[in-house]
Amino acid sequence: MSETQGKPIKCLAAVAYKAAEPLTVEEIIVEPPEAHEVRIKITHTAVCHTDAYTLSGVDPEGAFPCVLGHEGSGIVESVGEGVSSVKVGDHVIALYTAECGVCKFCKSGKTNLCGSVRETQGKGVMPDGTSRFKNLKGESLLHFMGCSTFSQYTVVADVSVVAINKTAPLQSVCLLGCGVTTGYGAAIKTANVQKNDTVAVFGAGTVGLSVVQGAQARGASKIIMVDVNSKKETYSRQFGATDFINPMTDLKPGETIVSKLVEMTDGGLDHTFDCTGNVKVMRDALECCHKGWGQSIIIGVAAAGQEISTRPFQLVTGRVWKGSAFGGVKGRSEMGGLIESYQKGDLKVDQFITNKRPFTEINAAFEDLHHGDCLRTVLDLEK
Amino acid sequence: MSETQGKPIKCLAAVAYKAAEPLTVEEIIVEPPEAHEVRIKITHTAVCHTDAYTLSGVDPEGAFPCVLGHEGSGIVESVGEGVSSVKVGDHVIALYTAECGVCKFCKSGKTNLCGSVRETQGKGVMPDGTSRFKNLKGESLLHFMGCSTFSQYTVVADVSVVAINKTAPLQSVCLLGCGVTTGYGAAIKTANVQKNDTVAVFGAGTVGLSVVQGAQARGASKIIMVDVNSKKETYSRQFGATDFINPMTDLKPGETIVSKLVEMTDGGLDHTFDCTGNVKVMRDALECCHKGWGQSIIIGVAAAGQEISTRPFQLVTGRVWKGSAFGGVKGRSEMGGLIESYQKGDLKVDQFITNKRPFTEINAAFEDLHHGDCLRTVLDLEK
Ligand SMILES: NC(=O)c1ccc[n+]([C@@H]2O[C@H](COP(=O)([O-])OP(=O)(O)OC[C@H]3O[C@@H](n4cnc5c(N)ncnc54)[C@H](O)[C@@H]3O)[C@@H](O)[C@H]2O)c1
Ligand SMILES: NC(=O)c1ccc[n+]([C@@H]2O[C@H](COP(=O)([O-])OP(=O)(O)OC[C@H]3O[C@@H](n4cnc5c(N)ncnc54)[C@H](O)[C@@H]3O)[C@@H](O)[C@H]2O)c1
Ligand SMILES: [Zn+2]
Ligand SMILES: [Zn+2]
Ligand SMILES: [Zn+2]
Ligand SMILES: [Zn+2]
Repeated sequence: MSETQGKPIKCLAAVAYKAAEPLTVEEIIVEPPEAHEVRIKITHTAVCHTDAYTLSGVDPEGAFPCVLGHEGSGIVESVGEGVSSVKVGDHVIALYTAECGVCKFCKSGKTNLCGSVRETQGKGVMPDGTSRFKNLKGESLLHFMGCSTFSQYTVVADVSVVAINKTAPLQSVCLLGCGVTTGYGAAIKTANVQKNDTVAVFGAGTVGLSVVQGAQARGASKIIMVDVNSKKETYSRQFGATDFINPMTDLKPGETIVSKLVEMTDGGLDHTFDCTGNVKVMRDALECCHKGWGQSIIIGVAAAGQEISTRPFQLVTGRVWKGSAFGGVKGRSEMGGLIESYQKGDLKVDQFITNKRPFTEINAAFEDLHHGDCLRTVLDLEK
Repeated sequence: MSETQGKPIKCLAAVAYKAAEPLTVEEIIVEPPEAHEVRIKITHTAVCHTDAYTLSGVDPEGAFPCVLGHEGSGIVESVGEGVSSVKVGDHVIALYTAECGVCKFCKSGKTNLCGSVRETQGKGVMPDGTSRFKNLKGESLLHFMGCSTFSQYTVVADVSVVAINKTAPLQSVCLLGCGVTTGYGAAIKTANVQKNDTVAVFGAGTVGLSVVQGAQARGASKIIMVDVNSKKETYSRQFGATDFINPMTDLKPGETIVSKLVEMTDGGLDHTFDCTGNVKVMRDALECCHKGWGQSIIIGVAAAGQEISTRPFQLVTGRVWKGSAFGGVKGRSEMGGLIESYQKGDLKVDQFITNKRPFTEINAAFEDLHHGDCLRTVLDLEK
């Protein structure tokens, strides 16, 4: 049993007080976990685009002040009553996609979207409707995506955390909390890519490059990466892409990215993935699919209010339009398998860490996101 | 061997000379079949919305003068060289979705869209690029959808026709050439409805009511028909709908058809089908699907240039957008099974025939389409 159990903890956190302003790194108070809650000592967190999206203020569901962060790993400090899935000292990953195992969604066997904590998570509070965070002035701070990993200690619902093998390095596997799992799962679970299938991926960030990994693991015959930034070609090939196209520079007059891809693949792709969040790209990704069976998976998060469109004939002639959240992965049942793949060397994770910083440099980590060749910045919360 | 074999046949046909004008019922010349072609004595044909769509002139691919019609049955009069799949005297149904068995599409096992005659079919000619129809002035007339059933004799590719059990009444099974097969197949093949699934169908025409039949055959627990014409309620319930909603009259203030359907089904439908061709309806049909797994199938043909739209979040949260052509049915391999279901009394076909007319009244049959309670008018080409 830990010394701090049952007591509030004072620790460093990065608080988002206002949209479009830098985070404030300051001491906050983290209350002990209530029943079916877990308090985690976060050791590492990465910064993902969803954090930046909410911080920017354009996320219509974003609310402040809050503690952002959802791609994090750590060690269980204490647990509330009735928690049986993890125990003090367990190494864990926080899960923004919960898995309760008993709701309509979990029991359907058809989706990884769990309904158990959805409503309160969306409002930035714990399942009982209250927060475990306050600043030193006593102001309550909201939670974020059920995780809030931008704090040395956080409290999550017991359905929103998974224990992992202690031999897995926490500074790497935090990336399995979002980007890597999202892309890899989208390829092997949502799309279920098969041997010799052809694949096109739009957007060579951590998500898109992880789709490439999944497609390669399945034995895809062609994996075409499409990115407007030519600097991404090297990464793309390292992760397994067989081709790279920059639509800004690599198209002949009269060619479109759709016509080019259709020509390269004798009629179109078996699977395509949007990993950009751009609705125009989502349309192209659908329309370059093979007639009769090609399917396009939307992973990117579009700006508020934006819509996708196409002619219905695209679907009537057999193309399928889908989406994927957290790669279709059930965090508590399936994380162990991903960790194993990583530890066996089958799943690249370390290769995404292009920058490392102490926690206090978190605002610089947000800046890193805008640099074309940064994949992920991992923050060390013990520094 | 028939007396007419190898010779041109003079017979009655309904010629579409110009968009938006009545058909001209007159004698035409039908040439004998070339290699891999079949000449059919059409006994019965129905009129489908696609015929009316092309005749109206809004179909950008419509070309005139032509012989329309694609929902027809008849008897093989003669065959060209190399035809082995049907023989003189066979009872047959014309297929606008060919099945060659050897192209990339047919061999994929993933689609019923065959590529073998697609290009020439789209241009209104036989696979060798020429037509088998001319009028008595010697003007060549185009074919339509590889069928042209609005003629007492027609010529089709051997991949575009299927022989059926001679005990099946030709005046009924012509409907399996399009509408009934399209809806039924969309439910049992494209959507693959399972026992206890919930289903909503938009549009209670022949297609939508056949979706209802398919859903009922699979044991769906709830089959909700949505139609703006309240006269369709009786038909809908006869074909197996458990509920009927007219969105023009049955919604309370503040309710939308989407919110109403979501409320009726505890979160949304497992499967929905657009059988209207209205792109706004297609959007509603997607958005009332259950989060996590609900899928929407577009069957309706939208007006040229119209597009479907939605927020990508609808797909990221697990809804799937698909389409279906000819119900995903492979005409030559699977028609026998449908005929059997019909003959066993499992598949309703006769119930769609609300009007019967001699062939010479074909223009009145087009008028019938605009009457809200007409499902199908079957024309007898021997009268
Ligand atoms: N569905 C989910 O569960 C989920 C989870 C995590 C992230 N996401 C979303 O996935 C997307 C990708 O995330 P990431 O971390 O890899 O982002 P990233 O910014 O690192 O990568 C995006 C890449 O797309 C490229 N790009 C931008 N516009 C393009 C265009 N028009 N055509 C081609 N390429 C283009 C950029 O150059 C960049 O390389 C984001 O929208 C993110 O919000 C979704
Ligand atoms: N994909 C294919 O292979 C295929 C094959 C055949 C027909 N079709 C198409 O399927 C559609 C249906 O064909 P059908 O023969 O059953 O047509 P139909 O005209 O007999 O039936 C359409 C029904 O939709 C209803 N409707 C119209 N607008 C509506 C709205 N806004 N909301 C709810 N209901 C509405 C009408 O009242 C009517 O009952 C047509 O668009 C046709 O072109 C597609
Ligand atoms: Zn659940
Ligand atoms: Zn993320
Ligand atoms: Zn039709
Ligand atoms: Zn074929």
